[in-house]
Amino acid sequence: MTIVLYDLAGRDDLRFSPNCWRTRLALAHKGLAADAVPTRFTEIAEICGGGQKTIPVIEDGDSTVADSWQIANYLEETYADAPSLFGGAAGREYARFVQAWVQSQIHTRLARLIIKDVHDILTPEDQGYFRESRERAFRRSLEEIHAARDAHVDDLRKALAPVRKVVEGQPFLGGEAPLYPDYLVFSALQWGRTTGSLALLADDDPLNAWVERCLDLHGGLARSAPARAA
Amino acid sequence: MTIVLYDLAGRDDLRFSPNCWRTRLALAHKGLAADAVPTRFTEIAEICGGGQKTIPVIEDGDSTVADSWQIANYLEETYADAPSLFGGAAGREYARFVQAWVQSQIHTRLARLIIKDVHDILTPEDQGYFRESRERAFRRSLEEIHAARDAHVDDLRKALAPVRKVVEGQPFLGGEAPLYPDYLVFSALQWGRTTGSLALLADDDPLNAWVERCLDLHGGLARSAPARAA
Repeated sequence: MTIVLYDLAGRDDLRFSPNCWRTRLALAHKGLAADAVPTRFTEIAEICGGGQKTIPVIEDGDSTVADSWQIANYLEETYADAPSLFGGAAGREYARFVQAWVQSQIHTRLARLIIKDVHDILTPEDQGYFRESRERAFRRSLEEIHAARDAHVDDLRKALAPVRKVVEGQPFLGGEAPLYPDYLVFSALQWGRTTGSLALLADDDPLNAWVERCLDLHGGLARSAPARAA
Repeated sequence: MTIVLYDLAGRDDLRFSPNCWRTRLALAHKGLAADAVPTRFTEIAEICGGGQKTIPVIEDGDSTVADSWQIANYLEETYADAPSLFGGAAGREYARFVQAWVQSQIHTRLARLIIKDVHDILTPEDQGYFRESRERAFRRSLEEIHAARDAHVDDLRKALAPVRKVVEGQPFLGGEAPLYPDYLVFSALQWGRTTGSLALLADDDPLNAWVERCLDLHGGLARSAPARAA
């Protein structure tokens, strides 16, 4: 049975959410068919009969699971015979650490660079919600954050040093093949790729080769998403 | 047979090197007896018949292994029946990533805070070498770096966010029990603890409880090292 994924979408069906990309790639890693239903911020309250506050959310038969980390664990346990997302108990701790690292060190730095771009690819209905909630969180206008972004690009690139160091020596963070930590980091860069007007990585950054490998995974799933030109 | 570990030492037999602490804790994790031979910077060229540039180096029977990462892998393979340092192939990738993260994001920030302290606990013979090499690398005097350090404490604390997030929810980065990633991060803080005149963590930092758990491991091995009062 096809799993339903409520997937954040902008105008023109753009799929940009890093947390939803984690889940799409995790479903593909497990070889599971999924219907990624485009969902706007202002529609989240209506899905699954109500009560959901964020997406991704999946519906798998009678099971409804919210939160990308909970979903990854659900898929790993429920589809234990499919390729492992974690590679065992210690690998699950690897994913936990990388998620904490991505959210505290990378998403925060990326948001400063692309938040105005994210706003610009949303539907008009979502733009009002997004601007109000994000300007409250940042205590600045989207335009002010956007105007300062060039000064912060190098900070993001430096923060990515541990990933760069690892994938200079081997194909993936998971080793010879990808594991969930690859999806966690790649999905952050995919957020920039799908919404961004800015080249997040320098042309000669060794990370580019790893990004290309991730874009190729699972039949080019992530590459198939429309990307705004940098 | 007892393994010999050439272990960086200062005056008063202070053992402060983060890279050597990784190895001491890895040996203890494996339940291996080790003789941690105090070795000064200016003595490294003489150990093992010459040719070594950095420590830790271990001698295990006929095997000589340099570099903390190589040593961890050697111990894991050679003593495969002893408790695992990595917890499998994906766990080894976890350790690889955390090492890249610690070295690029934590050691660099820590060095700015404690480099003058490290100098001050060295033997007079080592102090000349240390000052010359580090002032060349930083392009500033140790005293200038030291004078600016208070402004950088908060930067270190923020960079530790992913560890804080994980160990707020469970005992160790390895889960219920420590794995090599715990030793990688703890050894950085042990570098500060053994040399430092500065409290690296705020009193109410949730990381303190994890540090205490690490200090208790293996019969209180790391706690037994003399620490300069903060």
